[in-house]
Amino acid sequence: MHPGFAFKIAITTGEPAGVGPELTALALARALLTESPAWPDTHFTVLGDTALLETRAKAVGVDWFALLATGYLTVRHQGLAAPARAGQLNAKNSQYVLALLDAAIDGALAENFDAIVTAPLQKSVINEFGIPFTGHTEYLAARTGTAQVVMMLAGSRTARTESAVLATATPTSASVQNSARLPKISRVLGHDFRVALATTHLPLKEVAAALTIDKLMATLGIIDFNLRRDFGIRQPRILVTGLNPHAGEQGHLGHEEIEVIIPALEQAQALGIDARGPYPADTLFQPRYLDQADCVLAMYHDQGLPVLKYATFGRGINVTLGLPIIRTSVDHGTALDLAGTGQADPASLLEAIDAAVVMARHRRFTQLNLVSSI
Amino acid sequence: MHPGFAFKIAITTGEPAGVGPELTALALARALLTESPAWPDTHFTVLGDTALLETRAKAVGVDWFALLATGYLTVRHQGLAAPARAGQLNAKNSQYVLALLDAAIDGALAENFDAIVTAPLQKSVINEFGIPFTGHTEYLAARTGTAQVVMMLAGSRTARTESAVLATATPTSASVQNSARLPKISRVLGHDFRVALATTHLPLKEVAAALTIDKLMATLGIIDFNLRRDFGIRQPRILVTGLNPHAGEQGHLGHEEIEVIIPALEQAQALGIDARGPYPADTLFQPRYLDQADCVLAMYHDQGLPVLKYATFGRGINVTLGLPIIRTSVDHGTALDLAGTGQADPASLLEAIDAAVVMARHRRFTQLNLVSSI
Ligand SMILES: [Zn+2]
Ligand SMILES: [Zn+2]
Repeated sequence: MHPGFAFKIAITTGEPAGVGPELTALALARALLTESPAWPDTHFTVLGDTALLETRAKAVGVDWFALLATGYLTVRHQGLAAPARAGQLNAKNSQYVLALLDAAIDGALAENFDAIVTAPLQKSVINEFGIPFTGHTEYLAARTGTAQVVMMLAGSRTARTESAVLATATPTSASVQNSARLPKISRVLGHDFRVALATTHLPLKEVAAALTIDKLMATLGIIDFNLRRDFGIRQPRILVTGLNPHAGEQGHLGHEEIEVIIPALEQAQALGIDARGPYPADTLFQPRYLDQADCVLAMYHDQGLPVLKYATFGRGINVTLGLPIIRTSVDHGTALDLAGTGQADPASLLEAIDAAVVMARHRRFTQLNLVSSI
Repeated sequence: MHPGFAFKIAITTGEPAGVGPELTALALARALLTESPAWPDTHFTVLGDTALLETRAKAVGVDWFALLATGYLTVRHQGLAAPARAGQLNAKNSQYVLALLDAAIDGALAENFDAIVTAPLQKSVINEFGIPFTGHTEYLAARTGTAQVVMMLAGSRTARTESAVLATATPTSASVQNSARLPKISRVLGHDFRVALATTHLPLKEVAAALTIDKLMATLGIIDFNLRRDFGIRQPRILVTGLNPHAGEQGHLGHEEIEVIIPALEQAQALGIDARGPYPADTLFQPRYLDQADCVLAMYHDQGLPVLKYATFGRGINVTLGLPIIRTSVDHGTALDLAGTGQADPASLLEAIDAAVVMARHRRFTQLNLVSSI
């Protein structure tokens, strides 16, 4: 398909009324319309409506044809179901949004893509259209036949400069193109803060009952395995929060630590997983802990995400662990109020693309090593 | 008692095996053993065992007698019940710890103190001794006959330098001593991040049921009133989180927002309180929101405190709102492993003392204004 490239990545441009299309244009323009493109051995397939992409790129000052002329990307056209205006949701385009996602998933499952990067979609408008949809993560799990996935957000606590990806992107040497079967891992991601969630989109009062030893142990296993394979971390250290305030204070403030979390940790440790805890969440997110952690496992959404998003400051990314395919995304929504204005910041999408590139590299390297060691 | 001083503040030195005694010595030495003392119109009553204070001050390199000679502090001696060794808890000293607290509370209720600052104590050892004790905050509420209090943590998102208090402390002019009846408010606290909690030390699974419209509305009232009176904020803006992920997504992820939080907000707004929300907790703690908020009200402990403690980086303080007296404290524990080593950082205690000084000033100013306007 694109024989000159070592890696192929799909980008779904998401909700057509939102910022996804323009952020895709902005992110790729910043990374590729330059003397030294950020990812010289990687090809991007942008999924969306060609006319829409062209229009939104123009609206935010990106020369879309110059970008296409770089040869680093092609558009896989999917026609809109209805006209799309920036900021104005139209439920008819729900099928369009899902078609982009399906094409990316199918392509990745067929190994035409090494990873997929998803721009935001609007869950409510898909539901309004009559399609049950609880989120990208859940859809990807169902569509790939995966029983359990883990949502992880990642970013850097320090990189608050204009373009962390562009500053740190060390272009891989041209020789990589000629050794596609054994790519070098030129760098690791600059993430020093990762938070995975034991439960995700549940009403708070259902969280405690949703935690089980088996599920928690499987979660630790997925994190451990994926951090090794896709992030190149040899022995991931996972620090685990308690469910209750002060991690339950030896049972004075709740029993789930004693009955669920500690047994799950012990079972995981017996399998060689370096998982520790449970730690009180209010004091765990401090440099002396985070500096020695590869990932924090929080028990629920609002225990882990506020601090991650505060610290990574709009540059966090979302990674779905446990899928057969690599999938990253931005950590923000469709930002309908900013669509078409050029004010939305492509930083998170740039980071998400960069993470997909690096993860694809790690995964192939791991697979080749496994094959060569047989 | 100390007629030359406009303000009098009590400091309870807390658990004698912990860092409280040495941090008190360190904090006061840094602030007062200097050419321009930080709080020239304020007298401190340090509650603790004289010999213990002397020993711990010496252990961390503080000249305790030079400190006493400044005239800014006196010790109110309370004899230990048993010998105290750094790092080694002794349940017999539980009564000592509570006696310090009782003396401070009684003194404040009798208006001998304008505020009390509490160093950390060890809850577990008090319980072990057979005294039911669930925390400073709850004890203070019971001891002062207060039906509802609100725990608030506060700090600065930016001040990560060595000694924020000392750098920003503008010594009040000498004239303040001569106009004790109408102190000037020389400055406001440099806090740009405050988080109050709607519920505190509850098992997570009990949180949803503990939220009621009445309690939440009373909480908003306490925050609003106390920020006006003790912090000099004319029209406090309070941003309120949802209970559930994404603030419940219009009922898709829980109903407490619709059934409890929104009605409480509407009632509070009808009383002129500038309370807004509910906002998704994972995206609320961003500069564009925090910059316009005087306080965030989080629904529970681990929703609000991890991000506050991350952002304020060991310099946060704890304030109990709703008491008849002013009370501040550090945001950390007894740090038994650091006791006696000199490695514990007095930054949070310095901030807590500074906040007490400024709050006492605001409250007296408010009271005088109220009296003069009758
Ligand atoms: Zn607590
Ligand atoms: Zn979410």
